[in-house]
Amino acid sequence: MASLGPRIDELIEAFRCLPGVGPKSAQRMAFHLLERQRDGGKRLSNALNDALTNVHHCQQCRILSELELCNRCSDANRRHDQLCIVEMPSDVLAIEQATHYKGQFFVLSGHLSPLDGIGPEALGIPQLITLFDKNTIQELILATNPTVEGEATAHYISQLAHSRNIHVTRLAHGIPLGGELEFVDSGTLSHAFSGRESI
Amino acid sequence: MASLGPRIDELIEAFRCLPGVGPKSAQRMAFHLLERQRDGGKRLSNALNDALTNVHHCQQCRILSELELCNRCSDANRRHDQLCIVEMPSDVLAIEQATHYKGQFFVLSGHLSPLDGIGPEALGIPQLITLFDKNTIQELILATNPTVEGEATAHYISQLAHSRNIHVTRLAHGIPLGGELEFVDSGTLSHAFSGRESI
Repeated sequence: MASLGPRIDELIEAFRCLPGVGPKSAQRMAFHLLERQRDGGKRLSNALNDALTNVHHCQQCRILSELELCNRCSDANRRHDQLCIVEMPSDVLAIEQATHYKGQFFVLSGHLSPLDGIGPEALGIPQLITLFDKNTIQELILATNPTVEGEATAHYISQLAHSRNIHVTRLAHGIPLGGELEFVDSGTLSHAFSGRESI
Repeated sequence: MASLGPRIDELIEAFRCLPGVGPKSAQRMAFHLLERQRDGGKRLSNALNDALTNVHHCQQCRILSELELCNRCSDANRRHDQLCIVEMPSDVLAIEQATHYKGQFFVLSGHLSPLDGIGPEALGIPQLITLFDKNTIQELILATNPTVEGEATAHYISQLAHSRNIHVTRLAHGIPLGGELEFVDSGTLSHAFSGRESI
């Protein structure tokens, strides 16, 4: 295998830890930064180092945060009687961009996956139970992904909430806007049909 | 626009200097490293910093190198009478992986593009002329890309070489292996037809 030296090889190899980046893309990224974007590369190296050192998880909602208690959890203007459970930090941003939701969030950082050794502890369920037991939550909104693992995780959490008499809701399933009936999968169509609404 | 804090925003913005990375991919990369791959992120930050500090260009062939004179230029076992001109460092690796070429390389780091202010100096043509004037080169192999700019650059360099009586060759154009005649563009087909070989 041809090479341009150990430091360049190491840089190409290091880029491969990024999601969706194979050997060709990694080489392209390394050469691009070294040939044309040295300032950008320096900035990336510093930003990465800075974020890895200073960004941790909020102690209450587990979202990525520079503070012990993130802006959302410490904001007195947000509603504290609604709690929305999501799998990833990017889901929080997606919901905030699409809706006017002003309640609290809780980030699982994944879903139940016993085969991968991901159980309730890894998802912060003990922290979640502590939140439940504060008795401030009126509505628990389950916004995990509509996958098998996401549904199983939602089911598990909903049982914990029901046993504490917390009202639980789930994001609606149905036909996406702009979709065509003919091309919607039968599971989605079945959900949309049985969940039809009066107009 | 929703945000998780200035340091995370800065990291997402810094990832956008990579080729082919838009806002969504940049956010995915940042969250992936912070949530799941902190070791990989640390390694990337260090590798990037290390490479930017220690990797420069070979003083003779302009390829990316940790040494003043790269391994290829200082290797006494390589032929010094053949010089292959390419646009990018990745072209050197591609040629080495595909062929048994053991001569010298020269990396332009681009092609002539007057509208972008890229003239002969930016491509290291003065260094190339110094190489020509050493009178060691028997064959100059032009391996720039078969684009308009690549062809113009090849033409410009071939004229410099001809005026010094250096034999100039160009990579063959024709139908790629595995291609179907029906789907080959007419320019390539015309080249392949007029350059037909006896068998």
